[in-house]
Amino acid sequence: MQFYETDRVQFYETDAAGIVHFSWFFRYMEEAEHALWREAGISIHQPDAEIGWPRVAASFEYHRALRFEQEFEVRLRIAEMTKKTIRYACVLAQGESRIATGALTIACVRRRPHEPMRAIDIPPDIAAHFQVADES
Amino acid sequence: MQFYETDRVQFYETDAAGIVHFSWFFRYMEEAEHALWREAGISIHQPDAEIGWPRVAASFEYHRALRFEQEFEVRLRIAEMTKKTIRYACVLAQGESRIATGALTIACVRRRPHEPMRAIDIPPDIAAHFQVADES
Amino acid sequence: MQFYETDRVQFYETDAAGIVHFSWFFRYMEEAEHALWREAGISIHQPDAEIGWPRVAASFEYHRALRFEQEFEVRLRIAEMTKKTIRYACVLAQGESRIATGALTIACVRRRPHEPMRAIDIPPDIAAHFQVADES
Amino acid sequence: MQFYETDRVQFYETDAAGIVHFSWFFRYMEEAEHALWREAGISIHQPDAEIGWPRVAASFEYHRALRFEQEFEVRLRIAEMTKKTIRYACVLAQGESRIATGALTIACVRRRPHEPMRAIDIPPDIAAHFQVADES
Repeated sequence: MQFYETDRVQFYETDAAGIVHFSWFFRYMEEAEHALWREAGISIHQPDAEIGWPRVAASFEYHRALRFEQEFEVRLRIAEMTKKTIRYACVLAQGESRIATGALTIACVRRRPHEPMRAIDIPPDIAAHFQVADES
Repeated sequence: MQFYETDRVQFYETDAAGIVHFSWFFRYMEEAEHALWREAGISIHQPDAEIGWPRVAASFEYHRALRFEQEFEVRLRIAEMTKKTIRYACVLAQGESRIATGALTIACVRRRPHEPMRAIDIPPDIAAHFQVADES
Repeated sequence: MQFYETDRVQFYETDAAGIVHFSWFFRYMEEAEHALWREAGISIHQPDAEIGWPRVAASFEYHRALRFEQEFEVRLRIAEMTKKTIRYACVLAQGESRIATGALTIACVRRRPHEPMRAIDIPPDIAAHFQVADES
Repeated sequence: MQFYETDRVQFYETDAAGIVHFSWFFRYMEEAEHALWREAGISIHQPDAEIGWPRVAASFEYHRALRFEQEFEVRLRIAEMTKKTIRYACVLAQGESRIATGALTIACVRRRPHEPMRAIDIPPDIAAHFQVADES
């Protein structure tokens, strides 16, 4: 399961060093995740759903800077699925040049009013939409 | 009803022009609004509350730029209250020097699942916490 | 001079009320402004340029809420040009339904290291790219 | 070298799941970093400086959610210093309860106009301000 999209750096994503602030890479990665889910025919967040997908771990290594109005590509793939979690691997690139390499792990939880979130198994009808993809 | 707080420009609030991005001023203003409510003993957003306070109008005039690590003061007062709305006036300043002048109007609404938001009168027990303050 | 683009609400743009935070509308408006400039063949921000375009005034009136993954249209036009400023009018809409109505005024300034920004006339070669558009 | 500060969740930091969006934790961590530098008597970003401190790697593990208006503590320490890099370890907590655990590695670079950033040794007068702190 792989997803590709191109994006362009917006002015509000830059900082006083003239480059995209490092916190934005995590938003780019999540934006691609949600687009991957839409492409699979489902929405990751439905207001009344009992099921939620909190982030368990997130990381990026930064190789090169991005600047205002530059275009880049976000490549996201499912690197691992367990009973309760999904782990994505992400590459931001400009052509052959890698900008940053990220990872994101999410867990499936039950959310009920006035109860703490509780980890649950990923429902089969959701898991059926996804499959692990090797690094290409 | 007036509220004062000092704040410091964070790096992620700056943009590639080296100054605070103009969208942040609206967040500074809202941050002061919520602190004013806390000072009045109430929270503007309670998860299960039927009542909500969507923003109806917001504006800023920008007089001077703010830069990384600069300190500034946010001054917020209630400029007008009607049966259904509250209007704030806001000044961002560094001492005698005005950085920006803003306004924010919020409305009281009823939020029920699966219904559109509907404007309602501000409940008296909430209105009792607030009063209009003239420009000082 | 008019510009249209469609956009989709990202998860990080929503808040705990379940709708797009009002500060994001100002970013949507600026995003359309920069796209309009690119369409005119110029970039509003060039790292080494002496000329800058600080925001002088910005406002929005909010008519309806936007939610996660909803698509909307940003319509931006130049409503007025003076010797030193450009004023945009902006409408966010879903088809016939208006979500919000905004305005943004920017000024042309000279930025030199160790000098305060100084308002200057818009250079003719830049002004030539733009023209006022009536409300359609 | 350790730094502690308390912070409060702002409304614009929450998302439609009702909790702080995971991207904000990286901003909290950086905010503490810059405060640690100020406490050491130096600013991490000076407009005309040739030296810059781009982020090389950043990560967080999320243990519990944060909600609107909750207070939390950010604890930051220097976990490692090499000739060219500084690595911080960060804990977000509410009293004894850990909210999230993060790490951030920054590198010292020379930034010159029209040249790519180049890794350099941390100048001794800057390194002298900092020292590694063990986990307490």
